[in-house]
Amino acid sequence: MQTTQKDQHQADYRAMLHKALEEGARQTVAEMLKGLHPAQIADALEALPWELRTDLWSETAATLKGEILLETHGEVRRQLIAASDEADLVVALDTLEVDELADLDADLPASVRNAMLQTMDAQRRDRYEAIRAYPDKTAGGLMDVDAAAVRKDVTLKTVLRYLRQLRGREGQLPEHLDSVMVVDEDNTYLGVLRLSDVVSLDPETTVSDAMIAGVPAIPVQTPATTVARLFEDRDLLSAAVTSEAGRLLGRITIDDVVDVMRGEAEHELMSRAGLAKSTDMFAPIISSAGRRALWLGVNLINAFIAAWVIGLFGESIERIVALAILMPVVASMGGVAGNQTLTLVTRGLALDQIGRRNARHLLLREIALGTLNGLFWAVVVASVAIFWFDDIQLGVIFGVALVVNLLTGAIAGTVIPLVLQRLGIDPALAGGVLLIAFTDVVGFASFLGLATVLLL
Amino acid sequence: MQTTQKDQHQADYRAMLHKALEEGARQTVAEMLKGLHPAQIADALEALPWELRTDLWSETAATLKGEILLETHGEVRRQLIAASDEADLVVALDTLEVDELADLDADLPASVRNAMLQTMDAQRRDRYEAIRAYPDKTAGGLMDVDAAAVRKDVTLKTVLRYLRQLRGREGQLPEHLDSVMVVDEDNTYLGVLRLSDVVSLDPETTVSDAMIAGVPAIPVQTPATTVARLFEDRDLLSAAVTSEAGRLLGRITIDDVVDVMRGEAEHELMSRAGLAKSTDMFAPIISSAGRRALWLGVNLINAFIAAWVIGLFGESIERIVALAILMPVVASMGGVAGNQTLTLVTRGLALDQIGRRNARHLLLREIALGTLNGLFWAVVVASVAIFWFDDIQLGVIFGVALVVNLLTGAIAGTVIPLVLQRLGIDPALAGGVLLIAFTDVVGFASFLGLATVLLL
Repeated sequence: MQTTQKDQHQADYRAMLHKALEEGARQTVAEMLKGLHPAQIADALEALPWELRTDLWSETAATLKGEILLETHGEVRRQLIAASDEADLVVALDTLEVDELADLDADLPASVRNAMLQTMDAQRRDRYEAIRAYPDKTAGGLMDVDAAAVRKDVTLKTVLRYLRQLRGREGQLPEHLDSVMVVDEDNTYLGVLRLSDVVSLDPETTVSDAMIAGVPAIPVQTPATTVARLFEDRDLLSAAVTSEAGRLLGRITIDDVVDVMRGEAEHELMSRAGLAKSTDMFAPIISSAGRRALWLGVNLINAFIAAWVIGLFGESIERIVALAILMPVVASMGGVAGNQTLTLVTRGLALDQIGRRNARHLLLREIALGTLNGLFWAVVVASVAIFWFDDIQLGVIFGVALVVNLLTGAIAGTVIPLVLQRLGIDPALAGGVLLIAFTDVVGFASFLGLATVLLL
Repeated sequence: MQTTQKDQHQADYRAMLHKALEEGARQTVAEMLKGLHPAQIADALEALPWELRTDLWSETAATLKGEILLETHGEVRRQLIAASDEADLVVALDTLEVDELADLDADLPASVRNAMLQTMDAQRRDRYEAIRAYPDKTAGGLMDVDAAAVRKDVTLKTVLRYLRQLRGREGQLPEHLDSVMVVDEDNTYLGVLRLSDVVSLDPETTVSDAMIAGVPAIPVQTPATTVARLFEDRDLLSAAVTSEAGRLLGRITIDDVVDVMRGEAEHELMSRAGLAKSTDMFAPIISSAGRRALWLGVNLINAFIAAWVIGLFGESIERIVALAILMPVVASMGGVAGNQTLTLVTRGLALDQIGRRNARHLLLREIALGTLNGLFWAVVVASVAIFWFDDIQLGVIFGVALVVNLLTGAIAGTVIPLVLQRLGIDPALAGGVLLIAFTDVVGFASFLGLATVLLL
């Protein structure tokens, strides 16, 4: 990977902050902080060990802390909130939009939330409560309620006047405004009027002629992941959120969706290793140890089941020690092949590309692939074993067991995530563990079993 | 996972298309296609088996094919291009913006590219060549060159007039225009003028008063992944791309960046299983088998090295068969623990959060975690072994080997990705293989070695 000027620069400011903090050079830290964007401070915080992190946090201005909290995730965010005093937090939260507040909501202590509500004016409180009413991880939780809306029968000139008034009244327009929503007199959503059309069409054009009617509105209860896919597929910058009756409730902008997309991919990756999505690299050792121990425990059960299977063939191993030498090869190859299938199928399910109709096709395809690769590698491993132990029968059994286990991997890798999805269990979390349990057991049992029957 | 109305609807149209194609109901297919967005057709194509996919493709109007190709990825895209006739492709490509064309560029056969160039007018061809000159996966490759730009000393009224003229001349404004760039007489980038400010501020305001000067411009050679991180961190919808001298060259919009972000996360996930980023679930079996076989081959070398290590202790296993039964437990637990560390560190490297200064801290932390978890699980596994085989010494050796291998996992999981990164090798691709080689060898060697020295 190439190190660019930009990367260099990023690494530099983090390393410089780290050094200044270690040396207790508060003056330097304070001056560096002045030149950084909240997102950069958030990055620096995430890359710092636990103790230095709280040092940096206490040097940061309260007015920046709101934006910084938004840019941090999971454990780091909770640690920073816990390390802040209440008055500071209330100041910090006051700098945020209400939909951003709603993102932080779950991580705020009740006392801070109450103090914050008391400092809000009535309008802001109403908007905040309106968003909080919708569950997190739905379109309702993502949306902003201060959507600008216009009627379809007015001209663009009127729209321009309305937007200037709105800005005069509110002090600013909603963030990331690329379009305004068009509604009828019942507040029913009709379409989107892009600002690029407002500025470039004849001012006498009516909204109904200038608007784009085909842009879909998102029902308020739509899951966040579906919203993300819709934004991605349709190249949207923003979209209207509507009630079941089609009334305009708010507006989702792409910056909210980007966080969802990042979270989704990260979830899959981290789940595979039994880690939480926003695992903090520098969380206190005790809390990390607990969570990782759980995952090791689950895998230990697997490993002991496999050991028990091997134990069934103890006598055979005593008589032919080559069995003990070669058996991990069979198990591991099945695991690797199965993992390829599992990764593909889990990804397909997450992207909603696997349904009843093509699942059968997929399974047959994976079985064919497993057979092909199994036969090829069976010849290779059998040859190695025959050469190594000078035993043709052993080599053949080794090869056959390998084919059996690659097939097991292909079938288990396809069927396990499909079944887990059907049962409402996250395939990214549980799929890998179950797969390895299957391929280990079948790998050891097929090789040792065949050998016991045929060689002894 | 909840199935929503939206999901239901999506699954439905795909299943219906699949059914209609299988039954050869061309009329139904043609009618369904009329109601679908190109992104939906792309989704349906990706979810179809290979043969039905080309059937659907041949029923699709050439004018939609450009957008559809943009929405498909990797192998699927190349298959569709190969299955199209040249005239159709030229029509399809004519519907796309030049920066979109540049995305497809690498997948187009030379003959199609030439035919396409011949149908372009001079201006379009110039823009296309300008973008193609920059390497893919840099800001230059992502940008669009038809950026609208204004001078800082004019009023917003003049900007409005300019945008109306631009639209009159070009027929349309650049896609996803949320802001115009501000430049001086040398075309040096100065800042951003948001359309939401153009529509809501007094028309007599000058651009220099209305523009935002702090929005960073992206140097043209910046890697695409850095661009993605910048958009994410700064919540940008668009950004200017500048030459080294600071001249405005073009503009990147967030829809281009979303594709980069999706690709980045997918790359990490798929690489772990030795799969290409946009692996097609339904690619022809032969080509898939080849790529997967390669990965299995790499892992087979690992597995045989581990087998060779076991072979060194053949005599010990012959005398104490419990060693063969328990040894896979030690190897597998080290692999699982190491994989947790590896995932965390690889992710941290990808997000550019690990540098020289905190790497040492991270390693010490992982060693502490490995020791803690090692000691805990050592007691558990030793107890199981003592109970199972009624042999205290064997149990103790089993436990000690487990601690050794969890530590190996922690150290290898931290050091391997750091070293690979330093060597310019992608840690997501090679990290897992190397890690398992380490934990397998150390796991088998430590357990069998200790047993050989102490028990025999």
